Amino acid sequence: MEKILVIGHKNPDTDSICSSLAMANLQTKLRGEEVISCRLGEINEETKYALNYFKVEAPKLIEKVDEGQEVILVDHNEFTQSVEGIEKTKILAVVDHHRINNFQTSEPLFYYAQPVGCTATVLFELYKSNNVEIEQQIAGLMLSAIISDTLLLKSPTTTDKDKKAVEELAKIANVDISKYGLEMLKAGTNLDKYTEEELINLDAKTMEKENIKYVIAQVNTVSIPDVLKRKEKIEHEINKVIEAKGLSLFVFVITDIVNSNSTAIVLGERTDAISKTYEIRDNLAEMPGVVSRKKQVLPLVEKNI
Amino acid sequence: MEKILVIGHKNPDTDSICSSLAMANLQTKLRGEEVISCRLGEINEETKYALNYFKVEAPKLIEKVDEGQEVILVDHNEFTQSVEGIEKTKILAVVDHHRINNFQTSEPLFYYAQPVGCTATVLFELYKSNNVEIEQQIAGLMLSAIISDTLLLKSPTTTDKDKKAVEELAKIANVDISKYGLEMLKAGTNLDKYTEEELINLDAKTMEKENIKYVIAQVNTVSIPDVLKRKEKIEHEINKVIEAKGLSLFVFVITDIVNSNSTAIVLGERTDAISKTYEIRDNLAEMPGVVSRKKQVLPLVEKNI
Repeated sequence: MEKILVIGHKNPDTDSICSSLAMANLQTKLRGEEVISCRLGEINEETKYALNYFKVEAPKLIEKVDEGQEVILVDHNEFTQSVEGIEKTKILAVVDHHRINNFQTSEPLFYYAQPVGCTATVLFELYKSNNVEIEQQIAGLMLSAIISDTLLLKSPTTTDKDKKAVEELAKIANVDISKYGLEMLKAGTNLDKYTEEELINLDAKTMEKENIKYVIAQVNTVSIPDVLKRKEKIEHEINKVIEAKGLSLFVFVITDIVNSNSTAIVLGERTDAISKTYEIRDNLAEMPGVVSRKKQVLPLVEKNI
Repeated sequence: MEKILVIGHKNPDTDSICSSLAMANLQTKLRGEEVISCRLGEINEETKYALNYFKVEAPKLIEKVDEGQEVILVDHNEFTQSVEGIEKTKILAVVDHHRINNFQTSEPLFYYAQPVGCTATVLFELYKSNNVEIEQQIAGLMLSAIISDTLLLKSPTTTDKDKKAVEELAKIANVDISKYGLEMLKAGTNLDKYTEEELINLDAKTMEKENIKYVIAQVNTVSIPDVLKRKEKIEHEINKVIEAKGLSLFVFVITDIVNSNSTAIVLGERTDAISKTYEIRDNLAEMPGVVSRKKQVLPLVEKNI
């Protein structure tokens, strides 16, 4: 029998990597057999900082899974964001904090989702309810995931449960939340090393609504103007993706993590899904106070597209 | 603001009614505002026995919900099994023990499902994790739901969690499980009072796979031959439904709850989905050892249709 795989979403962010590692740790303990943490893409700079800090190896890189493979999904449920071959797997469990869409199983499963800021917050409750002690390294990873997803508890997605989890996890991990958190987030804003093609794929989610396909990508920075210096080249890459994947819309959200604002590059036939709310000039939409793709950008596009 | 509604599936069985009442009770306590238990159809004889025994009023009968209504689903997630208008509601939470299919939301939600015998078993854990005491009447209802769904813990869907919940709930409800359970199940086997049209709708679930629509209905009895005395009239009603709803298959499972066997009346273009496994003679398939639609009949049809 193949070992059970824990899988986060494509273009993995810190939550997808750290929750995969934490869930594999919890499941290995609960099942008494090794459960393997996997990832579907390269580790970004922010996540690398967290893994180095807590001295944890990255999950195993996989590209596809075989028919009948037993899998556990974390931080996503939509098949379009999951591993190649997901339709033919046996999904044992999902732990998530997103809407449910493009997802189905033929058998009952364990599914635990909460409308909180981060998957690791739901995992934190799972550790508790199963009475499994959280090791220091794992606590550090879960803490990193919550800091990342909530931008240090500042995003509108942040809930009291996230705050409570962060407080307790920081104690176990033995770190100063603000100091560690800002260092980690800043590590993720070094975008110079990425090509424009890499940049628009770093944290890109493909969505589908009634056969209309669109992508919302996001990068964090400490200087939006710095990123916009590369605007022309970024647009060129986005247009290539739009054509190759038949997208109706590509929204590239550039988020200033210090001042909690975003500017988006908006391209495609259906830019009206954004322009109904935010004026678009020269393909740019300024979005004051916007930091959350899930809570602020996605519902808008979903409603208007 | 309209009050939040807790909704079980169409053609409500004992789990759908009792879990709706229990979840409304729990949510009312957690939210500090009245949450309304609803039902989408008539109460069957078995459920009536449980409600009378524990002196609880039936949930409110509703037919549809308005756009934007806040709802909580129990014991189902598939929109085809839910209330009219479900697509336009705001689904706050789901507590269930079925596969996930034909279900989607545009926003994150609370979703708690486990592959156990009964929704009430998952609810039992929710009461525990929220540190809410279970009242005697509610314990009686949850106990009834588990007895009903697991046929007194004999169905292959039964898990250790169901057994543990039953044990604890029986203490709170202060009943003898075997005695009460058999009385309740027997109350549900009095099928004489139903017309054939009612009989095939008592506990019928409509499924859809790649635009192929089919129904699997089930009734419990202490004598399969007694039910088959009405075979011709039942077949007549089934054929009417097949035509009216454009079904490819209708499986009417008659389950002997004492001997744990079933015989099914199988009609429609796609009877091959059953006959690949069980010989069909004169529209009848004998299914020795089969008592669970979810675990034994549905996966078979899903695979072969």
